[in-house]
Amino acid sequence: MADLFWPGDDRAGDHFTSASFLRAMVGVEADWLGHPLEVPDDLEWLAGEAERGGNPVMALVGVLRDQDPAVHRGLTSQDVVDSALMRMSDAAVASVLLHLASICRVLADLAEQHRDTPMVARTLTQHAVPTTFGFRVAAWLTAALDAYDDLTRLSFPDQVGGAAGTRAAIVELGRVAPDGVPMWHTTRAPITRIGDALAGTTDACARIANDVLTMSRPEIGEVSEGTGGGSSTMPHKANPVLSVLIRRAALTTPQLAATLHLAAANQVDDRADGAWHAEWAPLRDLVRRTLVAVSQTSDLLDGLRVHDDRMAAALAAAGDDVLAEQRTMADVAGHDPAPTYLGTIGPMIDAVIARARTLEEPA
Amino acid sequence: MADLFWPGDDRAGDHFTSASFLRAMVGVEADWLGHPLEVPDDLEWLAGEAERGGNPVMALVGVLRDQDPAVHRGLTSQDVVDSALMRMSDAAVASVLLHLASICRVLADLAEQHRDTPMVARTLTQHAVPTTFGFRVAAWLTAALDAYDDLTRLSFPDQVGGAAGTRAAIVELGRVAPDGVPMWHTTRAPITRIGDALAGTTDACARIANDVLTMSRPEIGEVSEGTGGGSSTMPHKANPVLSVLIRRAALTTPQLAATLHLAAANQVDDRADGAWHAEWAPLRDLVRRTLVAVSQTSDLLDGLRVHDDRMAAALAAAGDDVLAEQRTMADVAGHDPAPTYLGTIGPMIDAVIARARTLEEPA
Amino acid sequence: MADLFWPGDDRAGDHFTSASFLRAMVGVEADWLGHPLEVPDDLEWLAGEAERGGNPVMALVGVLRDQDPAVHRGLTSQDVVDSALMRMSDAAVASVLLHLASICRVLADLAEQHRDTPMVARTLTQHAVPTTFGFRVAAWLTAALDAYDDLTRLSFPDQVGGAAGTRAAIVELGRVAPDGVPMWHTTRAPITRIGDALAGTTDACARIANDVLTMSRPEIGEVSEGTGGGSSTMPHKANPVLSVLIRRAALTTPQLAATLHLAAANQVDDRADGAWHAEWAPLRDLVRRTLVAVSQTSDLLDGLRVHDDRMAAALAAAGDDVLAEQRTMADVAGHDPAPTYLGTIGPMIDAVIARARTLEEPA
Amino acid sequence: MADLFWPGDDRAGDHFTSASFLRAMVGVEADWLGHPLEVPDDLEWLAGEAERGGNPVMALVGVLRDQDPAVHRGLTSQDVVDSALMRMSDAAVASVLLHLASICRVLADLAEQHRDTPMVARTLTQHAVPTTFGFRVAAWLTAALDAYDDLTRLSFPDQVGGAAGTRAAIVELGRVAPDGVPMWHTTRAPITRIGDALAGTTDACARIANDVLTMSRPEIGEVSEGTGGGSSTMPHKANPVLSVLIRRAALTTPQLAATLHLAAANQVDDRADGAWHAEWAPLRDLVRRTLVAVSQTSDLLDGLRVHDDRMAAALAAAGDDVLAEQRTMADVAGHDPAPTYLGTIGPMIDAVIARARTLEEPA
Repeated sequence: MADLFWPGDDRAGDHFTSASFLRAMVGVEADWLGHPLEVPDDLEWLAGEAERGGNPVMALVGVLRDQDPAVHRGLTSQDVVDSALMRMSDAAVASVLLHLASICRVLADLAEQHRDTPMVARTLTQHAVPTTFGFRVAAWLTAALDAYDDLTRLSFPDQVGGAAGTRAAIVELGRVAPDGVPMWHTTRAPITRIGDALAGTTDACARIANDVLTMSRPEIGEVSEGTGGGSSTMPHKANPVLSVLIRRAALTTPQLAATLHLAAANQVDDRADGAWHAEWAPLRDLVRRTLVAVSQTSDLLDGLRVHDDRMAAALAAAGDDVLAEQRTMADVAGHDPAPTYLGTIGPMIDAVIARARTLEEPA
Repeated sequence: MADLFWPGDDRAGDHFTSASFLRAMVGVEADWLGHPLEVPDDLEWLAGEAERGGNPVMALVGVLRDQDPAVHRGLTSQDVVDSALMRMSDAAVASVLLHLASICRVLADLAEQHRDTPMVARTLTQHAVPTTFGFRVAAWLTAALDAYDDLTRLSFPDQVGGAAGTRAAIVELGRVAPDGVPMWHTTRAPITRIGDALAGTTDACARIANDVLTMSRPEIGEVSEGTGGGSSTMPHKANPVLSVLIRRAALTTPQLAATLHLAAANQVDDRADGAWHAEWAPLRDLVRRTLVAVSQTSDLLDGLRVHDDRMAAALAAAGDDVLAEQRTMADVAGHDPAPTYLGTIGPMIDAVIARARTLEEPA
Repeated sequence: MADLFWPGDDRAGDHFTSASFLRAMVGVEADWLGHPLEVPDDLEWLAGEAERGGNPVMALVGVLRDQDPAVHRGLTSQDVVDSALMRMSDAAVASVLLHLASICRVLADLAEQHRDTPMVARTLTQHAVPTTFGFRVAAWLTAALDAYDDLTRLSFPDQVGGAAGTRAAIVELGRVAPDGVPMWHTTRAPITRIGDALAGTTDACARIANDVLTMSRPEIGEVSEGTGGGSSTMPHKANPVLSVLIRRAALTTPQLAATLHLAAANQVDDRADGAWHAEWAPLRDLVRRTLVAVSQTSDLLDGLRVHDDRMAAALAAAGDDVLAEQRTMADVAGHDPAPTYLGTIGPMIDAVIARARTLEEPA
Repeated sequence: MADLFWPGDDRAGDHFTSASFLRAMVGVEADWLGHPLEVPDDLEWLAGEAERGGNPVMALVGVLRDQDPAVHRGLTSQDVVDSALMRMSDAAVASVLLHLASICRVLADLAEQHRDTPMVARTLTQHAVPTTFGFRVAAWLTAALDAYDDLTRLSFPDQVGGAAGTRAAIVELGRVAPDGVPMWHTTRAPITRIGDALAGTTDACARIANDVLTMSRPEIGEVSEGTGGGSSTMPHKANPVLSVLIRRAALTTPQLAATLHLAAANQVDDRADGAWHAEWAPLRDLVRRTLVAVSQTSDLLDGLRVHDDRMAAALAAAGDDVLAEQRTMADVAGHDPAPTYLGTIGPMIDAVIARARTLEEPA
């Protein structure tokens, strides 16, 4: 459980733990059976046995049949694993959405509050033109909203195909095959779409974290984390730890999503010889890391301290240079430079805030 | 143009070539200007200059201003590059969709034709239970339809932000900023969504190719490519070249899509210091390889030869084993095994075909 | 501990578990201190605290100081984490090497034994020319030896730099800084080299597994796994489970190694803001998956059954075609075709076997 | 040739262009034949034909046989492609090494020159303890030297195996097979090792570029690029364009190296059905991008301006905090803080410089 290699991992709670996987698989079998089943408690033993069948289902079914010999009839291992992955994903994505919705609310408030807080825009690390912190926050919010939209589009179908997807055993048993359940035992868009949307979510979180990391450099000092992390040897340090850990996640998730695509691209026959098995752990890691990242981002924003004096000072220090473009444009247009040079920042911020305000609450 | 490192590359035509990029950028500038511009012909020189500005726009604008000094006023380099990438992507995705629509039609016909062609299902490389070739084709079709759906959901927004996304120069110039154009200069979902959908497309193509590669092994011989590729030294060989090249593409595209996510995850400030620039070539490669792959898949399917005698022979050779499950199920159900053991194959095939038949034609 | 998402994970034993990480870190602190320290037992608590410091060291040091207040003096968190990662890597790579050495011995014997066992070579899935199974095994052995060579070249340096790599605290304390310990706190070749060599190792394992998967297809049947995995519903099936799980690993490790390179490529300042933290879990996963894969490959080869009758039959069935090239060459050379067409297979096999026989035993 | 998608691409010159590939393949054929061959000039046609054979060799041989019908006798396509890739890699790596050697020289001088230039160390973006710019440069140099070492270890074997690696045609023709040429037609360590070493090289370049990007932020201003890139609209801007483009490369190469490992991990039979073909373009891109990156890094360092006044000012502004650790350590040691707090910076810098000075010049 405790993962020393991924500080903050406990934020992901029980999502996609081995115990949850076991519960989800038992849930799938129970639903198929039509009555509840007790969850076996010997996880270690099951994990050990999982290798012999290539997946944990065969051993699990052996144990569950002590409760009811009709367990698993008509199903195949992949039905149970895939359906369990989808149920766990459904729950995890719902949790990601809750965090994201909260992030969007906080960002909308922050954008509103700092709609007119002047700061200097930076492009390619250099001072560019004036902007406002509210506009920057609107960019963060756009990223979060885009991720939110992608996540809400996901679906989490059960898999009910039997040995080779044909549902032959189900029919032979005289059962009615479920209606409207697509077959996807060898076409893995349901998996890759989840992976892509989760990677998009950590992209959005990192969009925010990268700015906090840059802006909280002491020479810039325009924002700081509410509670900085300490140092094991330097008492004065207040490290932007949450941002560091969010950025960390986003450096790893794209490759996990790529692994899911590679697994999809190596599908063959009526069940793939390795590509199917390669999905489970990367999906788990993607889900948990995204959950940790959105939770950390939520905390980061809740505690974020904005130093508008430093923003003003940086803009002042940038001097006339950042208005050079304006002078050129005013010249071209044949008038004196306008008193501000903030373009359509206001309406653009408002549009993004409005988009956030109409966010459908996740069910 | 000629790419010896990627046989078949010419199938992608002019999409995302340097010349097309140049034309698209000139088109963006012309649209902004309100009248046509001639496309400069010194691509080599421009490419050489591109390094000095970090992108090709500054040098291009220098040249275009000979035609009209008002060129580019109010825009920034990123506006031009991003909008050009989107226009090229729009055209390329339209072409991918045309190929995919054709693939779906062919697959729907093939599934219908072989709805009842018996073959043996294979899971984890081993014989499992009976199936039909039509059911296998329905899986291919599902993959293609899923990819199609994801591609149709894409949008290709222009970028019009000016120096730091604020549209300050536009306002200073007294121009009306475009309505409803979102800002995405540092939030890259428009890019990553394209990448993900294209990777999903090569996944779908590889889903087909992998099966053709396996099934055209001489020991199996259930399908073969219409025109096999020859060997430089062995006259008898008919290599499944199209499938080989499709599979090739799908081994490379997930990592390109991951690179786009990494670029999104490294956005910072009001224009990123490298992450933006890292998008262009991977997007180009993703687009062209996907175009090549769908075109090859279309040809592969047009020429595919199906050997139902070999399918029948393999099923016969598999013998009673593949009906062992049926006997167990019949025993459990207390009746004699049904004459066939094909579950709900028929309706499932029909459902997928129906999904294909209602495919909206791409505009 | 039990990982249901990665069947076979227990083969990696205690390598790179959170508990081992804790022990390794305590070992680093103890070595620096000059006397043993007891390992705290509250792993859960430490993992929870790890987030606040961004890594587990600060909380750990707090606990260890109850044993001796001099703990950690002169070090920084990164010294402890990096050194612990290296010590764990050293032990894990030693274990990988033991498995690989055993694999090489078995392969050398197998190549010798089947030096002259005729089979048909297959290129691009199609029959090509005659070969022997011993020659195929020599290819497997080459892959294993190449991986072995790369692993033996690795080094596992401690990290002793203090707060910013300067060893200032060490000097201030009047301690002698360790001799010959390189600084690598922001240059991560020691990490990426391990990642690359481990990815190379799973490449080699997959090289074998892919062939077993293909050759154990019932239509080919030239080899089979000693103990096939069963099916949850089809009693006759003997799935090549070990090969499936080995292949699975190799589809995921390249992206993990890429993540380590990305972490190296995002180093900045005197300690990176996320790129350092992104290394730990991917390295752990790379190590454990490689250990599982080499262990499974070793078992796979120990139990591999070779069906030379099926090899002979396939070659016979391929008929004259596979000698077409020989006839052309004989014609060109102006003589009758030689009785065999096996080139320099013998000496090439012998050379690879000889390379294996001189393998230095890992210490 | 001109690649608008990758500004700076022309720095890679003729390495790994389609024309170079063609020349290299003709060179392989000529060496095998024993006399020179003219290089065909119809690259477009050849590229078009390449798809039919799956690779460009069959069409090329058809053309070359007009010059001498004995061309290619005994070889197979893979021999020609693989050997050509290795020859091109050999030449390209030599060029990378020349750039790296120059980089190491410049860095050694720079480290020496700034051995005692004080600056503030930064960890996790925050001020830590005092350091010197020379020490930072020593870190850059370490990264470059590590990359150099890995590159010098590479080898570039020819491939001479014939149809299935057995050299059967060679023997049948009565030719003596080449001595000491290993077989690696399905074991791809020669390829993956190149990929890994090149990714390590861009890691090293990015290690430098990231620091320049951070340190050239106007609020920090400790270094600046010699000739900054301009803006298309803001005349005052001096963007760190070289650093931006170097960082760009390093965000893309790890995934290319991963693709080479994936290709290695998908080897099967006596020539893989797609995994072989997937290597060519990614290797090309890796090589060219690395060449561009080392060339740009060389220029970056040649022109780098170091602002030691800003370094001193930042250290002064950091104040007493950065000596807090020293006070603690001095307390513990029972003496007054030493006048400086720079640990063993001097000898560590010297050691790295010494390592650079003994660098073997590339041949």
